[in-house]
Amino acid sequence: MIESSLKVGVIQQSATADRNSNNACTVTAIHKVAEAGARLILLQELFAHPYFCQVIENSYFDLAESIPGPTTEELGTLAKQLGIVIVAPIFEKRAVGIYHNTAVIIDANGTLAGKYRKMHIPDDPGYYEKYYFTPGDLGFKPVDTAVGRLGVLICWDQWYPEAARLMALAGADILLYPTAIGWHPDDNPQEQQRQRDAWITIQRAHAIANALPLISCNRTGFEADPSNDKAGIQFWGSSFICGPQGEILAQAPVTEPAILLADLALGRNEEIRKNWPFFRDRRIDAYADLARRYSD
Amino acid sequence: MIESSLKVGVIQQSATADRNSNNACTVTAIHKVAEAGARLILLQELFAHPYFCQVIENSYFDLAESIPGPTTEELGTLAKQLGIVIVAPIFEKRAVGIYHNTAVIIDANGTLAGKYRKMHIPDDPGYYEKYYFTPGDLGFKPVDTAVGRLGVLICWDQWYPEAARLMALAGADILLYPTAIGWHPDDNPQEQQRQRDAWITIQRAHAIANALPLISCNRTGFEADPSNDKAGIQFWGSSFICGPQGEILAQAPVTEPAILLADLALGRNEEIRKNWPFFRDRRIDAYADLARRYSD
Repeated sequence: MIESSLKVGVIQQSATADRNSNNACTVTAIHKVAEAGARLILLQELFAHPYFCQVIENSYFDLAESIPGPTTEELGTLAKQLGIVIVAPIFEKRAVGIYHNTAVIIDANGTLAGKYRKMHIPDDPGYYEKYYFTPGDLGFKPVDTAVGRLGVLICWDQWYPEAARLMALAGADILLYPTAIGWHPDDNPQEQQRQRDAWITIQRAHAIANALPLISCNRTGFEADPSNDKAGIQFWGSSFICGPQGEILAQAPVTEPAILLADLALGRNEEIRKNWPFFRDRRIDAYADLARRYSD
Repeated sequence: MIESSLKVGVIQQSATADRNSNNACTVTAIHKVAEAGARLILLQELFAHPYFCQVIENSYFDLAESIPGPTTEELGTLAKQLGIVIVAPIFEKRAVGIYHNTAVIIDANGTLAGKYRKMHIPDDPGYYEKYYFTPGDLGFKPVDTAVGRLGVLICWDQWYPEAARLMALAGADILLYPTAIGWHPDDNPQEQQRQRDAWITIQRAHAIANALPLISCNRTGFEADPSNDKAGIQFWGSSFICGPQGEILAQAPVTEPAILLADLALGRNEEIRKNWPFFRDRRIDAYADLARRYSD
């Protein structure tokens, strides 16, 4: 088959409390990535904001916006101007009292190709997402765009092989993971290393299990706890792009903002699946219990 | 909670055409591993034989044996004598015309604690397993032993996150993967490296996704194609033991037989699941399509 190459870009940033400044940085970076030839750009989770879920604070609901809304308008204009597909994670206000952690997928003609609402919602010290985000109700459905069918998942989703598999079974060509994950500054360096390695390893494994390229975008920088109750979060960056055998094609540093670029050889997905035909042999007759909480 | 430690051992070997010699090597190694203090030992897939599935050859069915049978008898005696649990993959003759790729789990008192019949059966050039092995019909059920509940899977199973997850949901304490995987000598070194990395990465990811330690045992050495039609298989060894964050605790070389030992801190499974509570948030309402072949 003819090998088709797609240049993709990732924008890893640190966020400030100034939304306009964050947006301006992102727009500047999108221009750079597009000028470098990328036709698909992934932004980090909740890219316009600090990771406000460090605390439970009612007023943060006012950060949410509608879809379509100001961000989809602005990025739609930019996508059309540059002829690129943009995956932009925003804080969605769906209705009074219903908010989601959502990624909008803006097509190269500027239209809204679709959206993904985060399905798995974490809730851990410093990551109080169940307070803010209603669990997604759109399921695991990839979105068709000018550059292919995109399987967009968000952060906590990345720990669930089920999510990646469902995107692949629905025909995704690429898996994308916008993320906001970091270290508790009090954890020791060995524990921090194990956590970061686990985060890279499990996403590479989703690429391998499904023979799909994968793009992961994490934020970087330290963000203090606004309540000063906790030590804050040191986001570990390390955004990366890997191929359908999990091979790393590009990776960003831990502590610095970065733009990543890589060429995806999309024809390889099919070659890999012919050589290692995992999909042929799934024991769907024996998988029913995956839809159970536990065996008891 | 009280942290309990379990020493486990892996025996990575190269196989010859002489079954008695293979068995004698294995028995010697089991003695060594037990003397080193291990209470659980994992052998490689089809440990008593060369990887005969390189060719389609009717006479190889005669290598199969019943359960219970000579291997379970011999290893049962040894397990009781040494007070260890042995996971031994054999070629099972279940009935005239029904053969399985099976792992027997022999308890520390010498009894047969249970068995696992390989569920996902590959069939690729040089790995003609669908000819020899009827797909397993016991499902993904861990087996209770003196050292815990063992989630034993075999080789091709390791590419399926579904299998590991089902073992975890059924209460497995440890995942175990006896394997026979290697390189086509004609593949270039970069491709070989990607394949081996993928194999390590996806298994580490099963440990991570399920917060379970994992033991993987592959064979090593070159085995020629008996028909001389193909270039044979260079089994890549690299057996390893990792913890519930996917952290490597011990790893064997590529080309040499080896005995691996590691101490598993079983209490860590629960600690990890409390810190990263993936199991709490599975979207079982949205997983039904995992039991479908594809979305169309």
